[in-house]
Amino acid sequence: MFPYQSGNYPIPNPYYRFVSQGQYYNPYSDTGWPWWHYPIESKGSYRYSPPQLLTFVLVHGSWADAHFWDGVAAELRSQGHTVYTPEYAGHGSDPNKKVTHAMITKSVVDYIKQLNLHDIILVGHSFGGTVIQKVAEQVPDRIKRLVFWDAFVLKDGESVADELPPQTRQGFEQLRTMSKDDTIMLPFELFRALFVNTASTEDAKLFYKSVSPEPAKPLFEKLDLKAFYALPTPKSYVYFYQDNVLPQGEGYGWNPHMSTRLGLFRLIVGDGDHFTDTRTRPAYLALKIYEASRD
Amino acid sequence: MFPYQSGNYPIPNPYYRFVSQGQYYNPYSDTGWPWWHYPIESKGSYRYSPPQLLTFVLVHGSWADAHFWDGVAAELRSQGHTVYTPEYAGHGSDPNKKVTHAMITKSVVDYIKQLNLHDIILVGHSFGGTVIQKVAEQVPDRIKRLVFWDAFVLKDGESVADELPPQTRQGFEQLRTMSKDDTIMLPFELFRALFVNTASTEDAKLFYKSVSPEPAKPLFEKLDLKAFYALPTPKSYVYFYQDNVLPQGEGYGWNPHMSTRLGLFRLIVGDGDHFTDTRTRPAYLALKIYEASRD
Amino acid sequence: MFPYQSGNYPIPNPYYRFVSQGQYYNPYSDTGWPWWHYPIESKGSYRYSPPQLLTFVLVHGSWADAHFWDGVAAELRSQGHTVYTPEYAGHGSDPNKKVTHAMITKSVVDYIKQLNLHDIILVGHSFGGTVIQKVAEQVPDRIKRLVFWDAFVLKDGESVADELPPQTRQGFEQLRTMSKDDTIMLPFELFRALFVNTASTEDAKLFYKSVSPEPAKPLFEKLDLKAFYALPTPKSYVYFYQDNVLPQGEGYGWNPHMSTRLGLFRLIVGDGDHFTDTRTRPAYLALKIYEASRD
Repeated sequence: MFPYQSGNYPIPNPYYRFVSQGQYYNPYSDTGWPWWHYPIESKGSYRYSPPQLLTFVLVHGSWADAHFWDGVAAELRSQGHTVYTPEYAGHGSDPNKKVTHAMITKSVVDYIKQLNLHDIILVGHSFGGTVIQKVAEQVPDRIKRLVFWDAFVLKDGESVADELPPQTRQGFEQLRTMSKDDTIMLPFELFRALFVNTASTEDAKLFYKSVSPEPAKPLFEKLDLKAFYALPTPKSYVYFYQDNVLPQGEGYGWNPHMSTRLGLFRLIVGDGDHFTDTRTRPAYLALKIYEASRD
Repeated sequence: MFPYQSGNYPIPNPYYRFVSQGQYYNPYSDTGWPWWHYPIESKGSYRYSPPQLLTFVLVHGSWADAHFWDGVAAELRSQGHTVYTPEYAGHGSDPNKKVTHAMITKSVVDYIKQLNLHDIILVGHSFGGTVIQKVAEQVPDRIKRLVFWDAFVLKDGESVADELPPQTRQGFEQLRTMSKDDTIMLPFELFRALFVNTASTEDAKLFYKSVSPEPAKPLFEKLDLKAFYALPTPKSYVYFYQDNVLPQGEGYGWNPHMSTRLGLFRLIVGDGDHFTDTRTRPAYLALKIYEASRD
Repeated sequence: MFPYQSGNYPIPNPYYRFVSQGQYYNPYSDTGWPWWHYPIESKGSYRYSPPQLLTFVLVHGSWADAHFWDGVAAELRSQGHTVYTPEYAGHGSDPNKKVTHAMITKSVVDYIKQLNLHDIILVGHSFGGTVIQKVAEQVPDRIKRLVFWDAFVLKDGESVADELPPQTRQGFEQLRTMSKDDTIMLPFELFRALFVNTASTEDAKLFYKSVSPEPAKPLFEKLDLKAFYALPTPKSYVYFYQDNVLPQGEGYGWNPHMSTRLGLFRLIVGDGDHFTDTRTRPAYLALKIYEASRD
């Protein structure tokens, strides 16, 4: 279906906002000055406008827990936003690693329902993309926008493993069989090369301390996503171009390979990698997520 | 044909330029100091050199008029360049929306001839790429260089619609049939997601005020471009990597999908999107266009 | 083979490093504060750490000689690194242009052996990628890491010419037949458009002064690289996204087309082109190479 076929596209009502020249100005007034009288360059916006205050629910990916978002959440909160970082089954302090994708999805759905959250920006990173795909199917009315940051957007019937290059998939399968509890532990060399490639040596080692074995099964489960692909929810994709967890093209990768499955979506691009900026540049990452999330 | 087969590539005549150390220096003198004695980093150039003054003709794309260029033109003029921003048939104050691609081309050709412009840098944005392809066929001797900025480079016999993904093409066809005068109006949601994705909410709304219905026919006309592909005119392509009007790869997109059709071309890359920087960062966009245009 | 299958991935031993707050801190201590108490943004690292001092061997590409690295080498040395820039057969002051790829490889291998270098970061640029592939086969025990910067990574049995688009390959063959000594001279127009596209006009001309005819044969020799693809040596790829020597995708290009042949590798991305930054931004290029090289 063509996602923008409604033909119903009213210009929002007139509104006022502050103009740095010290005047109030109605930009939708027919007698207003056209924009080109005011090409002002500052902070990427030609006129100042206060940030839109949003409610974020941030869903982490594999080999991470909810603390993954600590830096970004603190940054967003300091700007006035409301931020939630739910933990999900098989992660964080949960001792049970025998989890399914449905259990993980239920963790986030229950969290949203129990806190009775509405009008949320639901953000998924990496594997978390598959989680927000399924969560969105269950609580679509509570979601204002879906934001994928270097996140899987699976096709209906796919698993995460289906999107891995054969060599990586084979490697994951080997690591899985090596474990005693059906988990996959990332070797440091792989983590350093693919997840924190732009980090300093010390930061990479420090980051690796927070990595624990990931429940394997959800990575290999094929997901029914028919309901997801019928949702009219607005969508954005944040792509960081030094992210090399997946090869950048030739049939793989975050953007455009998976992002374009979203149909109409807003693209925001940054220069980071898969993990590092959550710790080294939380303000930068928070800005990119905000750019993807505002109306 | 191989575009650089001439074998005729003289080094330009010796010239003088100012060296910041306070000395005049002939870089082509056999007795001159080699460059590596002077690796100076400043403003991206290891030695200062004054800008080359150029004559620009800027050709806008669809859902825009000549005011699209106001910020960039002002910036280029402030640097000493001469800038023209022709309006073309079916756009701006022209009440007649029943136009053809040939009429649009004629507008620009007539403008160049009437002002008797020579040695011009002919810049096309988006749909304007197809216009400068056809203009170049008619006044090749007046053109110093062609610069495409996130612009269509059609193959011989193609239309703009041929380069759209099936879903987008279908959407445009639906919007076309919904109109009373064979135009296509962009819904705000589509414009916001694809044309001004990096803009603030307020800027996006303000930008949308300048969008009016686009004559549909020229987007679906197949163009004879045999003469274009025989032109030896130097060519450049400016690509902004947050531009998501077309999917970024897998058979679609500005670069490399369409840019490589130019044969030998100079690539310049920036971090903007399809529309926003004309208003929020005109100096940045002007710099990228200048980098693509200088000898 | 899966390059990270060993399952042997100990966290490095505890170590001390300076914390800017004026305290020594053991990041691997179980009682240490978790990282998220200290999200400090400065210079892209959330804690200060001194650079790791490395030994670099920099291998240039075609239409260049060892002076290509002068700016970068000076920069790296100023930071405390040890840097070697070997010249190889058929280049620099070598009057004999009738060289083979094996002779070029031997130049670098002999250089490394005679200086008895160990634990080196072997960096190859452009054609130099094929050289470090072959050098690595002969002295693998001396190499700590291979770093490719916009460099060819040939498949077993391939030549450089095999990776060129048909039009470029045909052009090179024409230029080759035009020469009297089986070399290829780059016309200025081609050099300006593809090798120094981001440079100012003056810098482009100055850079071109250092270009001399390149021995053609090594570009067309097919290389046996079976031994290379069995090496466990860590690998990195530095990709500059304004580099347009090869088309950026659709079956060609540096990244991901050739980089992914390395198997597991660390990706670092910068915004430069193929040649320019060696002269205009040596510190920037040196930083990117360092980021690719550190542990």
